[in-house]
Amino acid sequence: MNKDSVIMDQNELTDFLAAEFPQVQGEYSIDRVAAMEIDVRLNVQDRHLRPGGTISGPSMFSLADVSMYLAVLAMIGPKALTVTTSANLDFMRKPVSGRDLIAKCRILKLGRVLAVGEVHLYSEGSANCVARAAMTYSIPPK
Amino acid sequence: MNKDSVIMDQNELTDFLAAEFPQVQGEYSIDRVAAMEIDVRLNVQDRHLRPGGTISGPSMFSLADVSMYLAVLAMIGPKALTVTTSANLDFMRKPVSGRDLIAKCRILKLGRVLAVGEVHLYSEGSANCVARAAMTYSIPPK
Amino acid sequence: MNKDSVIMDQNELTDFLAAEFPQVQGEYSIDRVAAMEIDVRLNVQDRHLRPGGTISGPSMFSLADVSMYLAVLAMIGPKALTVTTSANLDFMRKPVSGRDLIAKCRILKLGRVLAVGEVHLYSEGSANCVARAAMTYSIPPK
Amino acid sequence: MNKDSVIMDQNELTDFLAAEFPQVQGEYSIDRVAAMEIDVRLNVQDRHLRPGGTISGPSMFSLADVSMYLAVLAMIGPKALTVTTSANLDFMRKPVSGRDLIAKCRILKLGRVLAVGEVHLYSEGSANCVARAAMTYSIPPK
Repeated sequence: MNKDSVIMDQNELTDFLAAEFPQVQGEYSIDRVAAMEIDVRLNVQDRHLRPGGTISGPSMFSLADVSMYLAVLAMIGPKALTVTTSANLDFMRKPVSGRDLIAKCRILKLGRVLAVGEVHLYSEGSANCVARAAMTYSIPPK
Repeated sequence: MNKDSVIMDQNELTDFLAAEFPQVQGEYSIDRVAAMEIDVRLNVQDRHLRPGGTISGPSMFSLADVSMYLAVLAMIGPKALTVTTSANLDFMRKPVSGRDLIAKCRILKLGRVLAVGEVHLYSEGSANCVARAAMTYSIPPK
Repeated sequence: MNKDSVIMDQNELTDFLAAEFPQVQGEYSIDRVAAMEIDVRLNVQDRHLRPGGTISGPSMFSLADVSMYLAVLAMIGPKALTVTTSANLDFMRKPVSGRDLIAKCRILKLGRVLAVGEVHLYSEGSANCVARAAMTYSIPPK
Repeated sequence: MNKDSVIMDQNELTDFLAAEFPQVQGEYSIDRVAAMEIDVRLNVQDRHLRPGGTISGPSMFSLADVSMYLAVLAMIGPKALTVTTSANLDFMRKPVSGRDLIAKCRILKLGRVLAVGEVHLYSEGSANCVARAAMTYSIPPK
């Protein structure tokens, strides 16, 4: 496994997501892909909000989760059975109202059976971290 | 705050959920409420599944999150602005196919500003824990 | 792997700990061992305390960590290279002054490569949970 | 609270640590302090090691914990009663043998009652992350 380059690019990941997860059609956009890194955007809609206008915890979890999933697939190829084994999140600030939410994900360890990464979520255009996540994924055997 | 009895019962929590979160209508049922404890059911539907037929991570996060939210409201009353501040989950087993998922939530600490709880998720009728979560909620000032 | 019985009992685990971790001599006692469960006692001494008289975070982490380690070894035998891969802790209450700290550990999943467990810490004689931990251990290949 | 500058510098933090935590004398060095950031070194000794020669989980927890503690005190001043409320760690790689361990800590949120930060641990001279931690501290009222 080469950790210096991706084997799925932005278009391939976008097509994979549309094919495998049609139920989230239009919800996420891949803004940037690089070796061991990805930026994914949540196109915030009413259904992501909860009382008080903040983005719901599940919506933030989903964004962190899909970001790590796509970051791993970019490195290992289209293995849909790659699954989350653990997640840890701190929700720190109310997102800026009316803005998309951007996940910046970085893989810290890409092992043979486990991948560990971290994700920081930001309201578009803001430098304040809205939420922080650590995600572990299990990689299926070949 | 009396920790020996609830101030919202099963019907009141069900009505609150329907009124405040109409977008999850029919998704969750409250099976049991007691002081510092609640059991909540995810009525599993196709949209909760992911490739391979397992229940998605976000669906399990949402179930753990709503369980802790309802467990806290049962004790403190209908404060919709109570929000998740942190979450930690281990996803351990594939749920049993075709079964509902049951969250058993217990509040470990109900403080003035923070509530800490744990949640275990089971496929209905199975004693094997599918996922474990710890959730912290921030309680709004009076 | 039989999950209904231990293959190391209380005496064997105590001897193992003394032989492999002489630096913690006298610090921990194993109160009870059962299949997938263990109770371990921290014999609280001055060096475990921090300003304000509370038991330090590292002392509580160590107790949770050693408890899960011993719970796993009880099931799989004396594999010293079994290592922690992740930990999550909530510190909820100040322990009762002058009391030992008791860890009650339960293995939730004992897989081929990973073991996941949870630990609750109590001041001896108190029903209030001082801290909660989830620990994941990596099991070395045979 | 000004988030652009520290109110305790490297010397003041070093003196504070020596005065309040004499039991860790010589164990930690503060390599760098800046607004919302700190680098702390674990001067690795035999007692930090475990079978197999790796640095023990408790030693890594302690380093992450003291780093976040000092990062917070640098911003708010010498409040010894500031305590850890939660911690999450992933242990990812065996540290390089015979090298000190460096914690790079960053505060992500410095609120009125809670501070949330993240810590990455590296063997000195290596770019591979040995462990990742998220720590939450409770700040005592004035």
